[in-house]
Amino acid sequence: MAGSESDGGTESRPVRDHLSEVRRAFHRDPEPAWCEFATTARVVEYAERIGVDELHYGPDITDPENRLSVPPEAELEGWFRRARERGADPDVLERLRGGHTGAVAVLERGPGPTVALRVDIDALHVAESDDPGHRPAAEGFRSENEGVMHACGHDGHATIGLGVLDAVRGSEFSGTLKVLFQPAEEVAGGAKAMATGGHLDDVDSLLAVHLGLDRPTGTVVAGVVRTLAVRRFRAEFSGTSAHAAKNPEAGDNAIQAAVSAASDLYAVPRHGGGATRVNVGHVEGGAPGHTNVVADRAAFEAEVRGEDTELMEHMFEECATVIRTAAERHGCEVEITVEGEAPREDSDPETAGAVEAAARAHSDVTETIPSADFGASEDATYLMKRVKENGGNAAYAVVGTDHPGGHHSPTFDIDERSLDIAVDVLSDAVVRLGAE
Amino acid sequence: MAGSESDGGTESRPVRDHLSEVRRAFHRDPEPAWCEFATTARVVEYAERIGVDELHYGPDITDPENRLSVPPEAELEGWFRRARERGADPDVLERLRGGHTGAVAVLERGPGPTVALRVDIDALHVAESDDPGHRPAAEGFRSENEGVMHACGHDGHATIGLGVLDAVRGSEFSGTLKVLFQPAEEVAGGAKAMATGGHLDDVDSLLAVHLGLDRPTGTVVAGVVRTLAVRRFRAEFSGTSAHAAKNPEAGDNAIQAAVSAASDLYAVPRHGGGATRVNVGHVEGGAPGHTNVVADRAAFEAEVRGEDTELMEHMFEECATVIRTAAERHGCEVEITVEGEAPREDSDPETAGAVEAAARAHSDVTETIPSADFGASEDATYLMKRVKENGGNAAYAVVGTDHPGGHHSPTFDIDERSLDIAVDVLSDAVVRLGAE
Amino acid sequence: MAGSESDGGTESRPVRDHLSEVRRAFHRDPEPAWCEFATTARVVEYAERIGVDELHYGPDITDPENRLSVPPEAELEGWFRRARERGADPDVLERLRGGHTGAVAVLERGPGPTVALRVDIDALHVAESDDPGHRPAAEGFRSENEGVMHACGHDGHATIGLGVLDAVRGSEFSGTLKVLFQPAEEVAGGAKAMATGGHLDDVDSLLAVHLGLDRPTGTVVAGVVRTLAVRRFRAEFSGTSAHAAKNPEAGDNAIQAAVSAASDLYAVPRHGGGATRVNVGHVEGGAPGHTNVVADRAAFEAEVRGEDTELMEHMFEECATVIRTAAERHGCEVEITVEGEAPREDSDPETAGAVEAAARAHSDVTETIPSADFGASEDATYLMKRVKENGGNAAYAVVGTDHPGGHHSPTFDIDERSLDIAVDVLSDAVVRLGAE
Amino acid sequence: MAGSESDGGTESRPVRDHLSEVRRAFHRDPEPAWCEFATTARVVEYAERIGVDELHYGPDITDPENRLSVPPEAELEGWFRRARERGADPDVLERLRGGHTGAVAVLERGPGPTVALRVDIDALHVAESDDPGHRPAAEGFRSENEGVMHACGHDGHATIGLGVLDAVRGSEFSGTLKVLFQPAEEVAGGAKAMATGGHLDDVDSLLAVHLGLDRPTGTVVAGVVRTLAVRRFRAEFSGTSAHAAKNPEAGDNAIQAAVSAASDLYAVPRHGGGATRVNVGHVEGGAPGHTNVVADRAAFEAEVRGEDTELMEHMFEECATVIRTAAERHGCEVEITVEGEAPREDSDPETAGAVEAAARAHSDVTETIPSADFGASEDATYLMKRVKENGGNAAYAVVGTDHPGGHHSPTFDIDERSLDIAVDVLSDAVVRLGAE
Repeated sequence: MAGSESDGGTESRPVRDHLSEVRRAFHRDPEPAWCEFATTARVVEYAERIGVDELHYGPDITDPENRLSVPPEAELEGWFRRARERGADPDVLERLRGGHTGAVAVLERGPGPTVALRVDIDALHVAESDDPGHRPAAEGFRSENEGVMHACGHDGHATIGLGVLDAVRGSEFSGTLKVLFQPAEEVAGGAKAMATGGHLDDVDSLLAVHLGLDRPTGTVVAGVVRTLAVRRFRAEFSGTSAHAAKNPEAGDNAIQAAVSAASDLYAVPRHGGGATRVNVGHVEGGAPGHTNVVADRAAFEAEVRGEDTELMEHMFEECATVIRTAAERHGCEVEITVEGEAPREDSDPETAGAVEAAARAHSDVTETIPSADFGASEDATYLMKRVKENGGNAAYAVVGTDHPGGHHSPTFDIDERSLDIAVDVLSDAVVRLGAE
Repeated sequence: MAGSESDGGTESRPVRDHLSEVRRAFHRDPEPAWCEFATTARVVEYAERIGVDELHYGPDITDPENRLSVPPEAELEGWFRRARERGADPDVLERLRGGHTGAVAVLERGPGPTVALRVDIDALHVAESDDPGHRPAAEGFRSENEGVMHACGHDGHATIGLGVLDAVRGSEFSGTLKVLFQPAEEVAGGAKAMATGGHLDDVDSLLAVHLGLDRPTGTVVAGVVRTLAVRRFRAEFSGTSAHAAKNPEAGDNAIQAAVSAASDLYAVPRHGGGATRVNVGHVEGGAPGHTNVVADRAAFEAEVRGEDTELMEHMFEECATVIRTAAERHGCEVEITVEGEAPREDSDPETAGAVEAAARAHSDVTETIPSADFGASEDATYLMKRVKENGGNAAYAVVGTDHPGGHHSPTFDIDERSLDIAVDVLSDAVVRLGAE
Repeated sequence: MAGSESDGGTESRPVRDHLSEVRRAFHRDPEPAWCEFATTARVVEYAERIGVDELHYGPDITDPENRLSVPPEAELEGWFRRARERGADPDVLERLRGGHTGAVAVLERGPGPTVALRVDIDALHVAESDDPGHRPAAEGFRSENEGVMHACGHDGHATIGLGVLDAVRGSEFSGTLKVLFQPAEEVAGGAKAMATGGHLDDVDSLLAVHLGLDRPTGTVVAGVVRTLAVRRFRAEFSGTSAHAAKNPEAGDNAIQAAVSAASDLYAVPRHGGGATRVNVGHVEGGAPGHTNVVADRAAFEAEVRGEDTELMEHMFEECATVIRTAAERHGCEVEITVEGEAPREDSDPETAGAVEAAARAHSDVTETIPSADFGASEDATYLMKRVKENGGNAAYAVVGTDHPGGHHSPTFDIDERSLDIAVDVLSDAVVRLGAE
Repeated sequence: MAGSESDGGTESRPVRDHLSEVRRAFHRDPEPAWCEFATTARVVEYAERIGVDELHYGPDITDPENRLSVPPEAELEGWFRRARERGADPDVLERLRGGHTGAVAVLERGPGPTVALRVDIDALHVAESDDPGHRPAAEGFRSENEGVMHACGHDGHATIGLGVLDAVRGSEFSGTLKVLFQPAEEVAGGAKAMATGGHLDDVDSLLAVHLGLDRPTGTVVAGVVRTLAVRRFRAEFSGTSAHAAKNPEAGDNAIQAAVSAASDLYAVPRHGGGATRVNVGHVEGGAPGHTNVVADRAAFEAEVRGEDTELMEHMFEECATVIRTAAERHGCEVEITVEGEAPREDSDPETAGAVEAAARAHSDVTETIPSADFGASEDATYLMKRVKENGGNAAYAVVGTDHPGGHHSPTFDIDERSLDIAVDVLSDAVVRLGAE
């Protein structure tokens, strides 16, 4: 599969003509947020095969102040070593060490605006199904990193990013194209750092894309609106242990504080100003088997969302009050750490219009929806916000795909025909956003 | 490895004259419940050195129906291999495989009653202090199994069991002495299986012993009463996951069910009939970082106690109702598994009287307390109950020891002078309980 | 008390030309839901003065099956006697006995469609301010029924109903006009019974109106949409009392069940399908001073709402599960009684269009809003739904009024200029909805 | 003030020989705490008939600082007027106005110690059974104050106090006897004020008595020990109201704060140091029917108890923390008011010994128990404590009585034969405590 980008003809497109194969390579090797070492090395390898004008990766693409939810050193190192063992390029890997994953590929195609496409590349802690009815299991590209899975389509997104690079390279596009391969979307941890990392500062139009989201193959939503703003946080309670039978009153029960707070988070009243959400997704406290100890340590991770950023922040303040007073009631200390967040940002008609036009022009697109509510969150909004603050425009598109299992489920899969549609529509939109 | 008990003189007592050294060997190599492989091998080795008439270990000493809270196979295997790597006798180890830890040593010394002494041998999941003020750290016998520690004195108990064997062997005792080295006391998991394992069926008097419990060196409590009955259990909730923003209503939130139940367990009303306790010592649910998922799995471990067995069972029924209705409220399934338990049993005056007499006769015992409330639980009560049901008597003694840190804390330690007192008093009590 | 409608001139309009005076008479004599005895008698008196073709009141205007939240007999009787003492017509009163309040006035003005206007007439349990800055206090028309107050503008609504009757009577309207004076809106208790009471069955267009709702004088919203569906209910817990010190475990604690359920109602998770609400507005349990009794009785009143009727019903089911499982956990029985409800219903463009045209034609209307979200609930939706089911159309209009205090607050008041606007705009809309 | 006791013979004892009749007069006219106007007037009347040396009533018998749980003026006045209407002596009543109920009667019988007997006189808010199987209903002495009932035997206690006065007057007792008729025991409100009111300062031995408590007729407990210390309190939450649908987030929900706190009070962990109790006996919040209002007011009454005063105070501090943090979480203010309390105080062997001796000497006493646990609370402990602090002794005796319904239940009644036993035993005990 040598990069054959020098010779002309249809054979010249190392990714565009092999989307399924590329996607399956990513699918086989899923890595969680900030640990996308092999993934990034593979992106770099393909980008070089395609032939790009600039290729950035390593510490200089993200702002060190804004990297959220980076896992502990030991976990990063485990994934780093694993990538090395699996044969990723050691020189590339070395620059990624410590979780500096992700990449920015640039094509300079003459005068004209700078158009960016953002795709995300991380996987989830989900154990992939080995049911024969699950195509990746049946066809041999199931996850080889047990317990981690591309269950949200980011293997497809990475492939689309490369495919668009490849397609635009052979197009009449005039201007500059940047494709951002963003790490750590699932934890809402990567976009903030990339937004302030410098590579967006000259962008005129930003496109972001997601596959699926319950839209079937053939449907394109040109620009989603009403994303929910989100903030993810961790509350860590510390108390005083004591013997649960001899003197429970001497303890400051961190588990009791944590479970009481976790329970009460759901009881923050609704808001007349719009939709809000709250969820506790992980809780842990005490030590296995130690029922006779009043636990001195417990923690949970939760998230709040809001129809706009103010509503999300209102929820966060309410939750912080719940947590603080629960700790106080039980004589515990508590520390709240923000682990990820994304503001609300809506697609602009200008940029979405280019996607809409490209979709309407594509013969395999059976339904084109100009605008639709998103109903969830995405840290791409950080990037959209940054571009808009600099006077640019942005749109977040959805390319439908038939998916048998739901997003984040063990049987999630995509219809690979949607990769072609996505690459075609987005590269056409890039061309339309370029100089005429 | 023949015992050298044939030669006379003070050199003849391999354990009795080396209590600190023996205890420190146990202390250095702590193993948790049902994983006491190296510990049991060491007990066997010392018992053989002392010279006993029978020595039982392996599957035949416990009733397979009643072994509670046995850890998963993988965990057992890890400790098994560790013991082998640390040099424990492979032939002994082989019989212990699968968690068949513990031992019963028998001395037959002529006609007379059968007297048993029960000691427990397991350690705790506590990370031992490395502060230079902590004697095991300063003097080089700190835990070599990081994260596990003899923080409740069972290293001393195992030593006392061997020391009493050694001392009685050289005494005028007439009758049969059995020393039971019981596994898995900390999880209230071992005694029930040992009680019905056969070795108690002919016992006339049972002694059990604990060091410390906030009594200083020089104090002996001849027989504790009012132990609390205890039951330890695990509640495992399973629900349905869903996206926390898009359709939280589609989920059956196992975390919400579990934290609500855990919180409400503490609100089971007091009982007019006597003291009760309830505690949640461990909780876990959802997956780290996955705040956007309505969790489909959460669990906690808890325990209830009562001043008598009926009160304990009342608390358990109340807790089961709390758990069941919380699961029902959140559309979850829940499974409650009993992980350990111990009834209430009080010391008898007959057996305690022998300890009291021995204590009063000992020059280093400065305070002898005939009877005192226990205020906690112990699965030795299963053994006491069994002996009583067969027409025998039983007593649970406390031998004071100055301990700088509290039981179960990282700085717990014992005053080794109390080992001498314990061996002297208990072996004297054994003699007094023998034939006159 | 014959209407004096025979003579011409401006003197001929007994209500239209005296809106403030009429409204103040209502304001002075506020009566709560189903107790609007004097209010109904006053409506009857004015309607007769105006001269109508039919005037219905008493048991035949509401469906006895669907009267919700009717207070106990003793309370009805108290208000009944009070109305008699204050001089209301005894013959009219007699037909209202037992809470059969409200009236339907009909004008038959030749061929054409049947247009209905619904106004509500009940007051609230709010103690009216006696601050001199509060106009009703300063100008002598403050509530004379201490503790009850027209704090939501229904005094104005009753006046508008009469004013429109009076104005349409002198207009070129062709068709039939029915004005429905509906009782018990504040408890969402009256509309369901009126919807199925027969008087709506031939209605082609239904108008309903509310003053204020934070819109200033001069603003008219032609037709609100997105009302919230609502259901109000009472949960009554019965348990077993016991002495709180001697044997609390013997009790089935109704207060503990009720407060736990009330607290957990707020924790019903948000719904991805749209806005929901839940609130507990009243709670009571046990007996004053009897802290030594485990209470055998406790109750609360709550309500749920939803952006559509299904969402409201989802919330109700969730709440019922919370309540039922809380009762079960505490060994109590619980009974849930629905006290009031209203579906979601949106204004139709046809009917709202007539209001919009009338508003745009009025010189004092400074802002005309065709459609706006309501954000709250109204049992007028029962009436709207009924008319639509029969093939008619309906709209709910808001006529702005400057109000110093918020709705339901002790200093609520209306700007009486808005009464003129409301009567003009609505009577013009009635004419437009009539035959051309 | 002369009684008619001057004539001799058995006819000379106006109370002692008519215990049932006197008790039934009290039973028929029950009055709640601090409202015992007719009851006190009746005590005064009988005491005068018996002939005492001093008779105190009105404001000077209680310390105004320490009167707890006095009801509002309007309630006091209602009961005051009722007593007047029922024919109580107006001159006596006038001194009791404002809730200055209760009396102290003194017999001076020569040299010797001062012995006091305390009886309580208030009734409960319980509606008495009208079942023909309930003797007071069948025999015509059921409560004539509907909703209030002597359901704890204080009618008998008042009778015993008078009976002992009468009996001791005709005995060989040497010394001074004071009988204290204490108001407001049921709310733990009267004893503190009487303890510091001056009349106890010279008392050498104090006796207190209770009928029943699940002991049958013929049993006497000479001195109870291990009363529970108790504190009763009220928590009043004030928040900010808001519309529950339009802007619930603008409210500070007093009901949510109160129900959450009330629920969490039960979850204060058990104490290793001894028995504790907590109960919420009354809760109220919001306004009936107003489910659409975020309530700005809610309150509950609760109590805590402890095996000793420190444990009770620990519970109170814990509850105060629960309440304060719940208010803070919901943005509410909260005020906690102590409404009643009683310390723990045990009977002394000296005083109990006199009761024991008297009981053993009585032919109708079939079982005499020197000492027993009480398991509940009594504000007599304030009086006992006061006497002990002054160097005296005290005992609290129980005189058994067969009672068909439980204490505080609608069918409670006493076996009137126990009145004779109580008067005999207690007057004999008084004699034994006098000078020999």
